[in-house]
This record gives sequence, structure tokens and C-alpha cells, in this order.
Amino acid sequence: MSEVAGRMAVQVGAHCLEKEQGGIGVLLGGVPGVPAAKVVILGGGVSGTNAARMAMGVEAYVTVIDRSLPRLYELDLQFGAQLHTLFSTMENIEREVIAADLVIGAVLIPGAAAPKLVSRALVRAMKPGAVIVDISIDQGGCFETSRPTTHAAPTYVDEGVVHYCVTNMPAAVARTSTVALNNATLPFVLAIADRGWRQALSEDAHLRNGLNICEGRVTHPAVARDLDLPFSPSDRLLAQP
Amino acid sequence: MSEVAGRMAVQVGAHCLEKEQGGIGVLLGGVPGVPAAKVVILGGGVSGTNAARMAMGVEAYVTVIDRSLPRLYELDLQFGAQLHTLFSTMENIEREVIAADLVIGAVLIPGAAAPKLVSRALVRAMKPGAVIVDISIDQGGCFETSRPTTHAAPTYVDEGVVHYCVTNMPAAVARTSTVALNNATLPFVLAIADRGWRQALSEDAHLRNGLNICEGRVTHPAVARDLDLPFSPSDRLLAQP
Amino acid sequence: MSEVAGRMAVQVGAHCLEKEQGGIGVLLGGVPGVPAAKVVILGGGVSGTNAARMAMGVEAYVTVIDRSLPRLYELDLQFGAQLHTLFSTMENIEREVIAADLVIGAVLIPGAAAPKLVSRALVRAMKPGAVIVDISIDQGGCFETSRPTTHAAPTYVDEGVVHYCVTNMPAAVARTSTVALNNATLPFVLAIADRGWRQALSEDAHLRNGLNICEGRVTHPAVARDLDLPFSPSDRLLAQP
Amino acid sequence: MSEVAGRMAVQVGAHCLEKEQGGIGVLLGGVPGVPAAKVVILGGGVSGTNAARMAMGVEAYVTVIDRSLPRLYELDLQFGAQLHTLFSTMENIEREVIAADLVIGAVLIPGAAAPKLVSRALVRAMKPGAVIVDISIDQGGCFETSRPTTHAAPTYVDEGVVHYCVTNMPAAVARTSTVALNNATLPFVLAIADRGWRQALSEDAHLRNGLNICEGRVTHPAVARDLDLPFSPSDRLLAQP
Amino acid sequence: MSEVAGRMAVQVGAHCLEKEQGGIGVLLGGVPGVPAAKVVILGGGVSGTNAARMAMGVEAYVTVIDRSLPRLYELDLQFGAQLHTLFSTMENIEREVIAADLVIGAVLIPGAAAPKLVSRALVRAMKPGAVIVDISIDQGGCFETSRPTTHAAPTYVDEGVVHYCVTNMPAAVARTSTVALNNATLPFVLAIADRGWRQALSEDAHLRNGLNICEGRVTHPAVARDLDLPFSPSDRLLAQP
Amino acid sequence: MSEVAGRMAVQVGAHCLEKEQGGIGVLLGGVPGVPAAKVVILGGGVSGTNAARMAMGVEAYVTVIDRSLPRLYELDLQFGAQLHTLFSTMENIEREVIAADLVIGAVLIPGAAAPKLVSRALVRAMKPGAVIVDISIDQGGCFETSRPTTHAAPTYVDEGVVHYCVTNMPAAVARTSTVALNNATLPFVLAIADRGWRQALSEDAHLRNGLNICEGRVTHPAVARDLDLPFSPSDRLLAQP
Repeated sequence: MSEVAGRMAVQVGAHCLEKEQGGIGVLLGGVPGVPAAKVVILGGGVSGTNAARMAMGVEAYVTVIDRSLPRLYELDLQFGAQLHTLFSTMENIEREVIAADLVIGAVLIPGAAAPKLVSRALVRAMKPGAVIVDISIDQGGCFETSRPTTHAAPTYVDEGVVHYCVTNMPAAVARTSTVALNNATLPFVLAIADRGWRQALSEDAHLRNGLNICEGRVTHPAVARDLDLPFSPSDRLLAQP
Repeated sequence: MSEVAGRMAVQVGAHCLEKEQGGIGVLLGGVPGVPAAKVVILGGGVSGTNAARMAMGVEAYVTVIDRSLPRLYELDLQFGAQLHTLFSTMENIEREVIAADLVIGAVLIPGAAAPKLVSRALVRAMKPGAVIVDISIDQGGCFETSRPTTHAAPTYVDEGVVHYCVTNMPAAVARTSTVALNNATLPFVLAIADRGWRQALSEDAHLRNGLNICEGRVTHPAVARDLDLPFSPSDRLLAQP
Repeated sequence: MSEVAGRMAVQVGAHCLEKEQGGIGVLLGGVPGVPAAKVVILGGGVSGTNAARMAMGVEAYVTVIDRSLPRLYELDLQFGAQLHTLFSTMENIEREVIAADLVIGAVLIPGAAAPKLVSRALVRAMKPGAVIVDISIDQGGCFETSRPTTHAAPTYVDEGVVHYCVTNMPAAVARTSTVALNNATLPFVLAIADRGWRQALSEDAHLRNGLNICEGRVTHPAVARDLDLPFSPSDRLLAQP
Repeated sequence: MSEVAGRMAVQVGAHCLEKEQGGIGVLLGGVPGVPAAKVVILGGGVSGTNAARMAMGVEAYVTVIDRSLPRLYELDLQFGAQLHTLFSTMENIEREVIAADLVIGAVLIPGAAAPKLVSRALVRAMKPGAVIVDISIDQGGCFETSRPTTHAAPTYVDEGVVHYCVTNMPAAVARTSTVALNNATLPFVLAIADRGWRQALSEDAHLRNGLNICEGRVTHPAVARDLDLPFSPSDRLLAQP
Repeated sequence: MSEVAGRMAVQVGAHCLEKEQGGIGVLLGGVPGVPAAKVVILGGGVSGTNAARMAMGVEAYVTVIDRSLPRLYELDLQFGAQLHTLFSTMENIEREVIAADLVIGAVLIPGAAAPKLVSRALVRAMKPGAVIVDISIDQGGCFETSRPTTHAAPTYVDEGVVHYCVTNMPAAVARTSTVALNNATLPFVLAIADRGWRQALSEDAHLRNGLNICEGRVTHPAVARDLDLPFSPSDRLLAQP
Repeated sequence: MSEVAGRMAVQVGAHCLEKEQGGIGVLLGGVPGVPAAKVVILGGGVSGTNAARMAMGVEAYVTVIDRSLPRLYELDLQFGAQLHTLFSTMENIEREVIAADLVIGAVLIPGAAAPKLVSRALVRAMKPGAVIVDISIDQGGCFETSRPTTHAAPTYVDEGVVHYCVTNMPAAVARTSTVALNNATLPFVLAIADRGWRQALSEDAHLRNGLNICEGRVTHPAVARDLDLPFSPSDRLLAQP
């Protein structure tokens, strides 16, 4: 779903920049003779890259900030001069966020809270009517000012900046998301249907990683820890007839 | 303002396609493994071309229908294989509109009502949740089902299709639009300031075309006709000291 | 040779689509105002990717169907919106093959027969005059209707569809293929010439994998199995003076 | 039809370069590590430009030679570094034709015989197995060695070079050509149907240019001259009730 | 020669930005993680467009400032988002020049002195080590601080800014320039050789515009005025046997 | 620094090709109607790829020669038809170097002297005024005729060919290089500052590889060998309190 969220981030950002939504009233791509808007993307992973691709597509001025130099090199090779890449330092983040019309938070660290890269003070220093889209809100958000919102009331204004922090962004494009999800899960469904759950799980470590409970026992270490229940490794259970 | 409206048409269309807005719930560009949405643009003039450019930018499947073959050749040369061009026949319009997720009406004929290219019956045949953005609404619209809306209440659903028919689209991105307008008018302002209105008007036919009343007389034929007042050609008035 | 076959597939497909060859009489890229032909490529490996690249080059509407989501993501990142990627499901294959003007079979599984992805019934449902190019014919082909042909008589019509199933496609562009083959084999030749066969084989596992017989003994397990002869691991033989 | 012929020229050229057709056996785009074939296009008009576009699409090394510098500038601006443009001098033509794998003759001068840009001696100096596609064969051809052929027997070898000189190339892709032709003629058909032939002809100079005989009199000067009949200007005849 | 000068402007600018030449020590295209340099081009005509194309090619951040909106639209359509276009106002020029690493003056008005778009005060406000390349120096230059230099001593530092103001830039790439010039003049040479000077001049107004003296009389109005000699229209002289 | 050197190689090469520097006097990208210069890059690693990218950017005709087929495939996929890739054979190197206007040596083998790919005889066979830029000069250079130079006197002419062999190329763009270097080293600096040198070194093998002397003992094998001092593995020293 990271692709969907990343690509959506630009269209919701463009919408929030409209005057009626409280935005500064700029068109991301500008028009000839009028500068394009500045889009800053924090994080160059899957979400950030998809956001960057769409933002370049609508002809904004796009900067990706990431703390991995090798990742910046990959992005530079892939997108060339149209994408601006910056190494993640506090100085770079501050300068770019202050100058930005749209900041997209796409810092997703698997299984960990997103780091608060942008402080309230920095949000306050942004232009009035600028927009923040926080894709990492599901993991707590990477702006000090972000708090979860819903599709029914997707935005709020804090420190003069429009915040879009919907926790389940892909639901807005349910049809696209569902097909994408089917594509990702269908091979597992077929494996279970063709070979039975026990054999399918035995043969595929990826599928086994998703197994939470088996034969009445908790087989996922995180679930066991959070529920304070004993943990049983799945491989032993699966091996039994 | 045609550039602004054309470019905006895609971002408002993308927004309307979200479930919360009544749309079909698809992402214009799809994701890998999931097809892109189909965007059909009626009219390949300035507005339509700018709309097409943004729609290609977000990686939709984009078709422009125009009745001018030379214009289709220009668009094909400019955008190559990424843009699909079709000659405007009733058969082509029907087939493409029925298959479309987003139809953008960009048929703008200077000083004339837009032709009703899409009938109510054809709108009814569209997919439920598909979206119509009618840029030509200022000239009456090119869909039989379009009626003017405002930024406060920009859309309505008719025949199951979401309609966005805001009459003054560029106002949503007021900052961009204002600078664009300044760029276009500044040379005239400077000419009047530098040379005086009489000389500036005498020397520039474009400026003179915008003159409605001069020395108490109506100097624009359409204004004279509509107000039933006598028409005085501007050149004679301007020639007098 | 997969690159050569993949790239050739589009030019032979274009040729077969001409009326004189029994084809439907369409130009792959169309012309402005006339839609491009639909090219469907089964398999997004080396052959399929090269075919896709050429098909996009001549401005056809190109769809690649693959069963690996990660591969679809790579293709999408590489080629962007110009290439349409679909996850391999029976529904997707059916819909796309029926709508296609040219279907290229590029499903190559090393050391295994190609799966019959397209049944005779599905070929029958294709448009009369559509074209099938089966690159995987060397491994049995991935269409139920394909059977090997030669450069002298490269095509036949079955179920109204033109089939091009030449088993050694690269021979048609012998000069290009020879240089490509030289490039791939020259380092091995030089290694043998410089260091002697024994040392060259000892030092390079890739070269050793190609060794069938050594000192009178069969050193390739598949050859040993097929000829029902005893198998001798090459490393022991090579170690001897 | 110039677009169709230009685009087709590359696919027929690619086919003729195959060994089985007598060609040199090279793939237009080469493969990594193996150079692309050299395609030289004589004439940068509509046909030549469409040929160049397809040849660049299949990744050949493409040079367009034209005698109009302004046209070369347009092509350079449109296609950038991927297209090589050369001013038409005898020296340039000789050097490029001798080095070429495929030469496409696209010198079309309306209403005049094509100039013989390439002499028999120059064809003799080409590589054995090189290919000539002469789009201008309908106007006599621009190679001294070209003579008209048909789709049934499209090629012959002269001076060791494969010649493809089919006079009605677009017929091979009849479906595409027919739609393209319909697009071009439909507006005239509708004008006649809607307004009657007399009014339609009176109002449209383009249509009138195609009028050969009216009310029993020859209204086209070239027809009158060729048939030695008196010429009657069409406007007078059309003006009569 | 405008194309040559425009394209050269970027390579000389890149050279001047090196530390050894007194420049600020930046690479035009930056590297991944390090921002590209800012190149500002005053004037979007032939020279400016060629300069912009090369500057984009080396992946700088490129802005073209022009006072013609239609020209900005053309540039935007041609180059898309990679080129930043700004309408020429004093505010825009000031802001961009101050932020620039390299400013290229390409304001060429045929037969007139270039306007002094950049004052000494504005040059003083530029970054130390920034670079000015003034292509319009042949017409007096468009920077208040520019003065003509030679290939032997091409640069000087004024107000802390490196100036490159060589009057005959194309001479540095004499081979390229000579061929380009030959291409442009050869048709005239051939016309004179084939038809004689009198007929060639009579038939071609472009050639006639270059005639200064004929039959002992001055036939060019500007030459006559500057030398205070009587002017004789060339057509009368040419008409005489 | 390989990126910086690679990108700089093209701008110094362009400069050296100017007449005043002794070069042949050609513009890398040519102009419409005049062929582009030929740039040959020996080695398709990081430096070579960055050089190729810039050379394509200024619209030269660019060929990369590398001895790794997989690398050529990657380059071909990345850059498509605009980059010409050749397998490294003596025949290919000879033919290309002789035809080249600019040859860039970018063969960098970590910790080893660069191979002398181009002999003095081959340099002698190059065009007078052609240019060699030897990025691999820090490792001895890959041309038999290269010898180290400085930014103060960067070039010399040998065998009629201009040689640019500055050993520390990135110093010319010190600002860009410094930021790039900071980006690469900052994470190590932060690690040492945050966790102390002992822990930082213990936890990061990359950092440890850079440790030359620790607690008075030589911890780098190459340094120990070159200075003829005893070598102490760093891990033991670091483990001690």
C-alpha cells in the first residue's frame, strides 16, 4: 500500500493547496512565466519515491531528503536532473521545509515509530497556507504537529499550516487499492487452496511470517509479547501431522 | 487562464474520483500491476493540452479527441506515444466516454457557446462514479448535464456521474493565477503609464480591442449591440487630440 | 540470445500484421488520430522486456503480464507510464489477449517446458488476423496452438491467427547475433588460451558448468542422466595433474 | 498517407535486413555491446520525420539529411541528440550512404519527379546486403536503381543491395490507412451532405481544388491540359444556380 | 552562429566556475545529495534556448527570463518541467541574478544595442565567484560591467564576479563553426555559380539583402548612410543587362 | 569523489577541445546540420557512467567500452539508445579511439594500478587536436602517454593530442566536492561524537577499515607493510577497555 499512499500524497497535497481548503492558492506545476511550487519529500523509500514521481509528473520543483547516500544515488540515477536530492541534515531539512509549499512526510521505518523530523517550531516557520501531508501518520507521524485524521474530516490547520494526516489513505481509492492488495495476496491464497494450509505454510517462510495463531497457540513473537502469552515457534507445530 | 484551468482539471478530477467525493475510487496512475485510469479530454486546444500534460504526468491513460487533424498531428509530434489522439467522430466520442474514468470538457470556441458534445444519454451510459470536469462551463459547458457550480459547493452527482463545473476554476489557485494575469497585463499597463492612454491605444491593436468606451462613446461593437447603443470606431476617436 | 529474440519479436510481429502476410493490416504505432495497435507480452523477463522496449519504441500500446509483483515494480520504475503492467491472472490474460493485435509469448523458465498460458479456445477468441509470436517455442511454446517453424516458412495461420514460431529467431540477424555471442564467450576463450583448459576450468565455476566430458568421463549430471552413463564430478578430474 | 509510409519504411527495412530476405543480417537496434545499425533518411519532411521517429524508437543510429537548414533546426529542437541531422551536400550523402545499413528515400516534392539523389555507382559502393526503401517511388524514386514493385513481390536485389520499392505502401496496413483516410476526408463528406455540393464547394477552397469536372466542363487546369480540353474555372460554374 | 555561441556559453561558464579561474568552485550539475548550481539565462531566443538546452543537459537548475509571454509558452511546451521560465520584470531579474551561480546574457536584438538589463549594483550583489557570460557583448553587452575580451585573455573579475565577454565566441570551436557557416552559405554560392551573380541576386531577396556595392554604386542603405554616399536601389542595377 | 571527477571530465574535455587550448576546435554537441563530436569512455563504472551522462547531456555521440557484459546491459537499460555500449576488445578500443574527438579514461580498479589500455602508438594514431582526459591518473593512468598534471598547468600536448591529467580533479569544484565529502563522512563523525571512538569503531566495520593507527600500533595491513612495521588487528585493541 506504500505505492498507493505515496502517489495519493501529491493529489491530496494539490487539493489542500487550493484556497477553499485553507491553502496558499498555488498550482503545483505553475504555468509558463510563473514558478512551480516547491515540494519537499522527507524519505526516499517506496512511498517517498512514488510521491516524488507524481510530483515531478505535475511539474512541481521536487526535493527528496534522505539519510542514505546510496539511496540518493539510486534516485539520482533513476530520475536525473528533474529530481533534487539532498542529504538529510538538520540544516537541509530546516532550509527546505521553510521554503516549501508542500511537505510530504514519508519516513517509514518498519516496526518502529517514525522519527519527529519536523518540530512545531519549524512548522511555525513555514509559509502560512503551506501544506503538510504525513504518510507516516500510521506510525505516529514525522511532524510534531501531526495527529491522525479521517477521510470524513481529513485536514486541520495548525500553526497556519494545513495538515492532511488521514491514517488509511489508500481507502480513498478503494478500487485501485483492492486490486493491488489482491495481486499481493493471491499467490498465498492459491498456495493454501492448492496444497492445504499446513503444507503451504511449511513451504513458504513469507506466508509463515504472517501466522499469528496455530493449533490454539500463539506463533508470532510480537503478538505473544503484547498479549503476555507463551510463544510457540510455528515450525514445530506445522511439522506435526 | 486557460493554462491554469487545464492543469487544475486533472487535480480536481483526481480528487473527485476518491470514494469520499462520490467517485469510483481509482488512482489516476494506478500502481504496478493495476491499470491506470482512463482520462478522455474533449478538445486539444490550450486548456485541453495542459490537462493532457498533467494527466500524462500522473501516468493516467490519456486520450485527446479533437476535430482538427492538423492539431492532432501537432499533439502527436509533441507528446509522442504517451498521448493517444483520436479524430472527433460521434463513434469515437461515444466509445471513449463510456470507457472513461474521467472526462474533461475543454472545447472552447472564442465568443461562442460550447457545443454539447456529450448528451445526457451518453452520461447515463458512463460508469457509476466516473467524473466529469467541464472547463467549458463558462461558455455553457459541453455536457448536456453540466450546470455551473462554485468553489464552495463544487460538485454534484447527476446520472451517477460526479460533475465538477466550477465557473472560475483559477480562483482556487489565486496566487498562481494572479501572477500569470500580471504577466499578461503588465506590458499594457507599462505602455499606458509610459506613453499615455491615447498613444498606447493608438499603437497597439491588441490593447485597442479591449477598449469598450472612449470619450463617452461605445467603441466595442458587441457592447454596442448588446446595449443597443450607437457604435463608434475607436480609431477615429483616438486620432483626435 | 534472449535480447536478440525479444527485440526481433516486434519487427516480425509488425511484418506479420501486414495484409500480405495474412495479418489484420494495422500499423503498430498507428498514426495521429488513429489508435495504436495493442501489443500484449506474456512474461517480463529479459526477452519480454526487450520486446516491450521495442514495442514502446514504435509507439504501440504495450502491456506486460507477469506473475512476479517485484518484477512488475521494476518494469514500472524503469519505463514509467508508457508501459502497462498487469499481474498474471487468468482473467487478465483472457481480457488482454482477446483485445490484442499482437501477442508475444516470452515465458522462459530455465530448463523447463514453457507453461501453456494461452489455450486453443482463447486463440480462437482472438481477432481474425491478429498475430502470435512465440519466443518460447524452443521450450515447447506457451500457446496451445504453437508449433515450431523455420526461417524458410516462418508462419502459419491457425484459428484465424497468424503464428510466427521460428525456433532459432536470432539466426535471421546473424551478424548481430554472432557479435553478441562472441562478446559473451570471448572471456572464456581468452581464459583457456591464457591459462590452459585445466586451470581456466578450475578457476571459473561458470566455465566449469559448461563442461560435459572430461578425460573420457561425463561431468555434467543432466547429460549423464539422459545418456544413462555414470556421472563424474569435474572438480576431482580437474584437480589431477 | 505520408505518415503511414514513413512509419512503415522502418519495419519493412528491418524485415529486409534479415538474412532470409537477402539482407546483411543485422538488428536495427543492436544489443548491448553490439553497435546499432545505421539508418540514413534522405529528406526530413513528413515521411522522413515519421521514418526517423520509428527508427529512433527501435534504437537505430539515425541520420536525416535535408537541404533545408530551417527544417534541420526544427528536427533538432524536436528530437534532440538522438537524431543526427546533416546538411544535404554530395559529400555528406556519399559518406553516409556508403556507411549505412538502411537508406530510406523520402524526398517528396509535390507535383514533381523526385530527384535522383543516389546514383547507381553510389549504390554499388554500399555494403552487400544493405537495404534501400524508396518511399518516393510513386514520383519516380530518388535512387537511380529503384523501380516500382508490388506487395506480392516487394523486393529485388540490384548491385548487391536489397531494394523495397512498393508503390502503394500504405495498402499493407489497410485498416490503419483507411481510418486515417476517413479522418482526412470525413469533414468534406459531411460538408457535402449537410450543405449540398454546390454550396460546400463554393465555401471551401480546399474542396474546390479537388473538383475535376463540373456541369460537363473540365474545371481542373492540369486535367484540361493533359486531355487537351478547354478549361473552365469552377467559381463561375458554381455561382450559377 | 547564435546556436554555437549559446551552446558554448555553458561550457565556458562551467570552466569559469572552477576555483583556478576565480570561480566559486561549484559543479553545474552538482552530485547526488549536493544541489545543482543555478543558471539564469537572460533572453529566450536562439542563443538563450541553446544555452538552456546545454545547461539542462549538464543537469543544472536552469531559469530563462524573457519578456515575451508567447516565447515562454513555447519554451515551456518544448522543455517541460525541467526548464523554469520567468516573465521579465525587474523584481524577477534581481532575485534570480542574486541567487545565481552563472548568469548568461543572451539578449540579442537585431541591429540594436543590447539593453543593460543588469546594473553594476546588481552585479555587486551577486555571490563572490559567481560567473557572467555575456553573449550579447557583440552588441554592447547586457551587463553594465561587461567589456569585450579575447580568446587569449577571455575573462576578468569585476565586483567579485568572473566575466567572460569574448566577442567572437564561435572561433573557439572553429571546425564546428566553419561547417555550420558553410551549410548556411553554400546554397548562395551554388546559386551564383549555377546562374551567374546577376540572375542569382535578382531571384533571391535574401541574397540581395547582402549586396553592398554593385556596378560601382552603394546598394545598401545603412552602408550609404554610414559612408555618406548616395544610395542606389539594387533592383534597378540588376535589371540592366 | 568518483562522481565529481566523472562529471568534470566532460567539461574539462570540452574546454580542451577549444582551439586556444590546442584542441581540434569542435563543439561536443555540434549544431543542427553539423555532426556532434565523438566521446569515447573507457570504463563504465561510477566515474565512467557520470562522464557518459554529462556527455549525453551536452549531446555528444557517446560510446562506453567496458569488459563486463552485465555492466553494459545495465547501462543500456538505464540510458537506452542514446548511449552506445561496446564490449572491450582491442579491436573495438582501437577503432573507437582513432575516431574519437575526446577519450576519457575511467578505468578504476580499487587498490591496483590502472591497466594501460591505450598505447603510445594508438595515441599517435588519434586525430591531431583530439583530447584525452585521464581520470585514472591517480592510479597511474590508463594511457601510456599520461603523466600527472596540476590545476595550475593542467594540460600538455603529446603525440599531437591534448592531455588533461590533473591528479585531484575535484579540487577545481571545491565547494561541490566539500559538501559531497561531508555527506559521506558526517554519519561517521556523528557516530564518534555520540558513542565515543572506541564503540563507534567497534560497531562499524566500514569505519574500522579506515583506522590506521590505534593505541600506538599500526592497525592497517597495507600501512604496516609499506612502513615495514608490525601489524596489529584493530579488533583486539578495540575490545580492551
